[in-house]
Amino acid sequence: MRSSVQNATLALLLEVAGTPKPGNVDRAHDFPDLHFDHFLAGAVGARPGLAAAADGAPVGEAFETAVAGMADQRGGNTQFGALLLLVPLVAAARAELSPASVRAVVEDTTVADAAAFYRAFEHVDVFVDDPPADAEALDVRRGADAIPALEERGLTLSDVMALSADADGVAREWTTGFERVFWAGERVLELDGPVSERGARVFLELLADAPDTLVAKQHGQAAAEAVSERAAAVLDGSADPESFADDLVASGRNPGTTADLVAAGLFVALERGVTV
Amino acid sequence: MRSSVQNATLALLLEVAGTPKPGNVDRAHDFPDLHFDHFLAGAVGARPGLAAAADGAPVGEAFETAVAGMADQRGGNTQFGALLLLVPLVAAARAELSPASVRAVVEDTTVADAAAFYRAFEHVDVFVDDPPADAEALDVRRGADAIPALEERGLTLSDVMALSADADGVAREWTTGFERVFWAGERVLELDGPVSERGARVFLELLADAPDTLVAKQHGQAAAEAVSERAAAVLDGSADPESFADDLVASGRNPGTTADLVAAGLFVALERGVTV
Repeated sequence: MRSSVQNATLALLLEVAGTPKPGNVDRAHDFPDLHFDHFLAGAVGARPGLAAAADGAPVGEAFETAVAGMADQRGGNTQFGALLLLVPLVAAARAELSPASVRAVVEDTTVADAAAFYRAFEHVDVFVDDPPADAEALDVRRGADAIPALEERGLTLSDVMALSADADGVAREWTTGFERVFWAGERVLELDGPVSERGARVFLELLADAPDTLVAKQHGQAAAEAVSERAAAVLDGSADPESFADDLVASGRNPGTTADLVAAGLFVALERGVTV
Repeated sequence: MRSSVQNATLALLLEVAGTPKPGNVDRAHDFPDLHFDHFLAGAVGARPGLAAAADGAPVGEAFETAVAGMADQRGGNTQFGALLLLVPLVAAARAELSPASVRAVVEDTTVADAAAFYRAFEHVDVFVDDPPADAEALDVRRGADAIPALEERGLTLSDVMALSADADGVAREWTTGFERVFWAGERVLELDGPVSERGARVFLELLADAPDTLVAKQHGQAAAEAVSERAAAVLDGSADPESFADDLVASGRNPGTTADLVAAGLFVALERGVTV
């Protein structure tokens, strides 16, 4: 029987394997500077941080360790958002994994966890939007330089996630008991076929259900909504996934946050006994 | 920096990702009952055994643990042969990985290691040929029932591998200081491009260089030689890899031992610093 750390690693691997996941690297798609191999190395590299979470280390420290290991490949940011979901889920799986247990992990986070989260941005380039004018001191791009401002304001990692919840689909999960992640996990359990292919289906379902926040940050809300409409059209058979994928790549639209949710959903499904 | 256990896991993943590897599951090919996902789960599942090898556990015990974990998926045997190469290599990497250090690991194996190797066959169905008439007591298909015969004859795991070296390309590596594995590792270091794609290239080079012993066991030496000739034709551009792959699948020819050598070669390359 796999440990929760093994399930988290396998979730990252099944996520990137699932195809088609239009606009993302998957088993059948690479980008010019971002290759499937980078995701394999990212998943393997993240393990020490995931293991730290399973051993009860502070969530922020475990996340920073996971990101540092993930970044030990040439593709850059492969799974930052996925790890920001998986680390608290692995911590929650020390008890029984549930919305309640992951809420408890979120509530227990500290200012030190927030500081470690900021340090994680020093290991890899992550796309982030400009902060609001009154929040420049908390810009994650400041990395460790933002820690004094965090400490002065007494912000925990849970507080930091709440500040980004409107704009960022991963942060939003932290404020909702990982609602869409657990939904995705249940969908993976319901569907048939190879688990990675179920993940690809759930990717489209999540994307059709709500605009991807990475696309919204990079290209605006209207662009993100258009991507969701096209995902819905692929699901109802009125659009072709490959031409959807081609258009997303050509226009630089990467629904990467939705892929992060799929990775976390696959973890939930594996913990709940989906067989590969 | 990845540990040798992480490098072994990554080697298994890069091996199955590399395409085209005609006649094998890879990033672009599944078989009816054997899916890419099964290899991902096999690689993740094998970890405790690989970690045991890195921690200095007896090689046989580490191998049995690795195989038991690998088998925790529905595809059956995914990486038995690859693990039979990787476990001694990971053990050898406790010192500096070299033909000499892996030879020392082989020489140090015991009768208990041989017994654990036989027990590993009880975790998963592995294709094996009939033993010679005078060696029926040592048929690996007997699993643990063969252990008294092993003990009576005082056969170590190294001795068992030597008995199979003529017929089995993995066992042969045990008797040659892993000669083709180290060659494959150096080739991966020499080539350019994504590491999994280098692995696919080295697969064809190894296959063109010598008949695959799994094909030979299942279909005879002439069939294995014909497969090697076709691999050489793919390399010189006179044959198409996809029609080669189609013909191998249609005729049930699986050059799986050559894929095992590639996985081990990828491990050598990762230990020697190839960057992903």
